[in-house]
Amino acid sequence: MARMTVPVVERVLSANDRLAEQNRALLDEASVFALNVMASPGAGKTSLILRTIEALSARLSIGVVEGDTAPVTIDADRVADRGIPAVQVNTAGACHLDAAMFGNALAQLDLAALDLLIVENVGNLVCPAGYKLGAHADVVVASVPEGDDKPYKYPRIYRGLDALVLNKIDLKPYVRFNEDYFRRGIALLNSDAAFFALSCETGAGVAAWTDWLAARSRGR
Amino acid sequence: MARMTVPVVERVLSANDRLAEQNRALLDEASVFALNVMASPGAGKTSLILRTIEALSARLSIGVVEGDTAPVTIDADRVADRGIPAVQVNTAGACHLDAAMFGNALAQLDLAALDLLIVENVGNLVCPAGYKLGAHADVVVASVPEGDDKPYKYPRIYRGLDALVLNKIDLKPYVRFNEDYFRRGIALLNSDAAFFALSCETGAGVAAWTDWLAARSRGR
Repeated sequence: MARMTVPVVERVLSANDRLAEQNRALLDEASVFALNVMASPGAGKTSLILRTIEALSARLSIGVVEGDTAPVTIDADRVADRGIPAVQVNTAGACHLDAAMFGNALAQLDLAALDLLIVENVGNLVCPAGYKLGAHADVVVASVPEGDDKPYKYPRIYRGLDALVLNKIDLKPYVRFNEDYFRRGIALLNSDAAFFALSCETGAGVAAWTDWLAARSRGR
Repeated sequence: MARMTVPVVERVLSANDRLAEQNRALLDEASVFALNVMASPGAGKTSLILRTIEALSARLSIGVVEGDTAPVTIDADRVADRGIPAVQVNTAGACHLDAAMFGNALAQLDLAALDLLIVENVGNLVCPAGYKLGAHADVVVASVPEGDDKPYKYPRIYRGLDALVLNKIDLKPYVRFNEDYFRRGIALLNSDAAFFALSCETGAGVAAWTDWLAARSRGR
């Protein structure tokens, strides 16, 4: 019988990655599905979260973590107004959430009571890409008025996504946006990310997104 | 005669600030006015630069430094197509330009031949605020579809500006944007920044911006 050499691959984890794994273990233990929502400022992260709450809160128990660079509670208030538990993480100027910040937020939530935890990362298309949180799915919200070239200009954050949400499709008649060019850019970086074109303003296309998310959350 | 005590204030400069001062000295020696343009991804930095070149290149000799996180030359090509000297700085994933990168770009330009140097920073509303380049004016380009709450959510980058450009005013009929609320947020952080509402798409309002910039450049 041929002798096989089994290579021992040691994965070297950064401090952040180790904390992200701890976060994931906590979430798994409580059967909570966590979603990390990243985007440019103003792409519509909060609007997507509010639409998602509207569609799913009757079926799933939802919590939200809001990452902000300043001690303003504009987004956290909008979520809490819907009766959803929301924890605000003020990064004190830092440009992304990291696993330690997310771990601190988890400690403030009653995870046993939740099915789905949505994390609104800091509005930034560069830095959040470098910091895993321990979430089960990473999503970028792009928006039509940002332009169709963003996957080419900011490739790192578009790589390894579970889903891409293209928001503000109601503005398509008024701006130049080549959706084929945009989607080719996404496909170059992700062979199998789900794609949802929608408008949080009109509600068009939101159901496909929330169905996908609900199926993944219930699958846990 | 009353004796006055003159306090000796030593300004402690960071390594970046020292390099920024060197950059400023180089620019001043060559009588070049340098503008640092910051914004979210997709707010319209490149479009504003192209409109500015269109309006001013007959009167002023203009150069451009393009900051990108990836080795794509989409923006630099658009500038070079106009016959304008453009240097691309690839930050290799980093989220901002710093004074050292800008210094390297300056070394590649014939400063004696320029009147105005426009720097397109990395698209990011958080990190560029922390790194002075040595430019004479800092400008943020905001855009109507990003929403009116950005000065409240990302205050650091809106602080200490010389001018605020609000782009994409042609989209005002199609989105909710309270300009009073937006401008109050800017005024809270800047007592005297110039304000320009314009559309790079239609050209509306661009002349006021380019007149302001030309007057500042010629003033050197």
